[in-house]
Amino acid sequence: MTASMSGQLFQRLTLIGLGLEGSSIAWAAKRGGLVGEITGHARTAATREKAMELGFCDRVWPTAAEAAEGADLVILCVPVGASGPVAAEIGPVLKPGAIVSDVGSVKASLIADVAPHIPEGVHFVPAHPIAGTEHSGPESGFAELFDDRWCVLTPLPGGDPEAVARLRAFWEGLGARIDQMDAVHHDLVLAVTSHVPHAIAYTMVGVADHLRRVTDSEVIQFSAAGFRDFTRIAASDPVMWRDVFLSNREATLDILGRFTEELFVLQRAIRMGDGDYLRDYFTHTREIRRGIIEAGQDTAAPDFGRRSTDAGKAGE
Amino acid sequence: MTASMSGQLFQRLTLIGLGLEGSSIAWAAKRGGLVGEITGHARTAATREKAMELGFCDRVWPTAAEAAEGADLVILCVPVGASGPVAAEIGPVLKPGAIVSDVGSVKASLIADVAPHIPEGVHFVPAHPIAGTEHSGPESGFAELFDDRWCVLTPLPGGDPEAVARLRAFWEGLGARIDQMDAVHHDLVLAVTSHVPHAIAYTMVGVADHLRRVTDSEVIQFSAAGFRDFTRIAASDPVMWRDVFLSNREATLDILGRFTEELFVLQRAIRMGDGDYLRDYFTHTREIRRGIIEAGQDTAAPDFGRRSTDAGKAGE
Repeated sequence: MTASMSGQLFQRLTLIGLGLEGSSIAWAAKRGGLVGEITGHARTAATREKAMELGFCDRVWPTAAEAAEGADLVILCVPVGASGPVAAEIGPVLKPGAIVSDVGSVKASLIADVAPHIPEGVHFVPAHPIAGTEHSGPESGFAELFDDRWCVLTPLPGGDPEAVARLRAFWEGLGARIDQMDAVHHDLVLAVTSHVPHAIAYTMVGVADHLRRVTDSEVIQFSAAGFRDFTRIAASDPVMWRDVFLSNREATLDILGRFTEELFVLQRAIRMGDGDYLRDYFTHTREIRRGIIEAGQDTAAPDFGRRSTDAGKAGE
Repeated sequence: MTASMSGQLFQRLTLIGLGLEGSSIAWAAKRGGLVGEITGHARTAATREKAMELGFCDRVWPTAAEAAEGADLVILCVPVGASGPVAAEIGPVLKPGAIVSDVGSVKASLIADVAPHIPEGVHFVPAHPIAGTEHSGPESGFAELFDDRWCVLTPLPGGDPEAVARLRAFWEGLGARIDQMDAVHHDLVLAVTSHVPHAIAYTMVGVADHLRRVTDSEVIQFSAAGFRDFTRIAASDPVMWRDVFLSNREATLDILGRFTEELFVLQRAIRMGDGDYLRDYFTHTREIRRGIIEAGQDTAAPDFGRRSTDAGKAGE
């Protein structure tokens, strides 16, 4: 499942967007020998030059259309909100038989934005690699980012199974484990596991900042006490997260509503001094945690519970 | 600051409670050669036997009073809510000149519960080592738990400075960095950095569990996406956390109120599609994160951002 599927799968890979995800895909594709050449586009000249200097692109172009022309696989590595306009730009130049994919954290709205611009004979296969760090920019990528992480494919109904299989092989070659599901379902699952936790972390950091004016440096000094995990989550790219919340609005608001209801019940138990309720609730959540350990997603060992690549995990 | 102050500081150390904190203090005290002997008490015979079998206690007693009699330093390592009754039990047998301390996450209410039972001539110096894992029990302790972690002393007004200095030397010998502050202020700082983050993490895990019935195993499968940090936090000892919230009620409710207000503003921005607000807010929280990195409390490196001992950090 995680073995590197070496061997060339595509002649030309084009990356639209050369930040953390784009540069990591490039490095991992080079590592696996998955593509013949890599072309790229970024909005700023500085980023394009950096990509050439670091060596993860063979050629870069000032427009997305120039970069995508003639490519066999085009991956949109831009914020979710920018995907529609990019698709509109590259649609007319896409080569028949090419595959277009993306790395967006939200799928249903992205599909609605992108699919109309993909011409007949080109295959659009949306994907979401669940891997990231809180860092961004072309220097932040590394070949191991996707190793043993999940990449969820959300193929369109009636899409070409062979194109899906080719993209799957590509992501396996990048080191990822593959899952496949419906786009709407993906968005609900991600709202629970990622988007609402991020909204909460952002909010808690904001609250602490109010208090920081009161408590001076102590909030930071003692941030090892649990709050630091929140700040790490809350350090992710602001534009990417703005787009995530705006594009996954329905599922996010649904889960946020459930969360505040549940939090009010806990808050009321604290106010009323209902110790039995608190103990039972905490016992229950500990059981859920144990379920996760048993599912093999984490280990109980306190000193080895976190692989180094998980430490910086925050994006998407 | 973190150097091991080797050399014996107390003849007899007594630990009331032999779980994670108690057993870790014992192992660290042995490592530093800080005490002549270690006696202990735990409620259950199984725990007492385990402590002897593992070898971190020289003697154990079925009652707290028997264990504390003749001790030079007594540390209460029981849940905050149990500290008052334990103090009432051991008060009459405490040796003149002895020091009584604790490891509780909440200080003001603990002082109110314990101080009245400490006789004249015995020094009560409350302490809070900000270190823990989500594990509990006598097998979970290890000598390195307090290395480079903060231990906050909250001495009583008018307390004996020499006793405070001796306890400080002891905690430095266990490997900790020492800070000192007023008990009420400690409780507010900890509500922000630890208690409310835990309440939030517990709640989010509870919400995911509702959804888990809908989404089956996927919440667990993708729990790497940020939610897993929450489950780790939410796996801490239920009784300890019940007591924390009940004893630090005022500060916790204050901060929870601020948090829900702030979250509603964010939620409204998502509902109204206010992208500018979201981007600005997330940019601001990223700056706070950078402040923490600059304060030396964490590192920006994604692969090395978390020391192994932080990985299991969840308690207190």
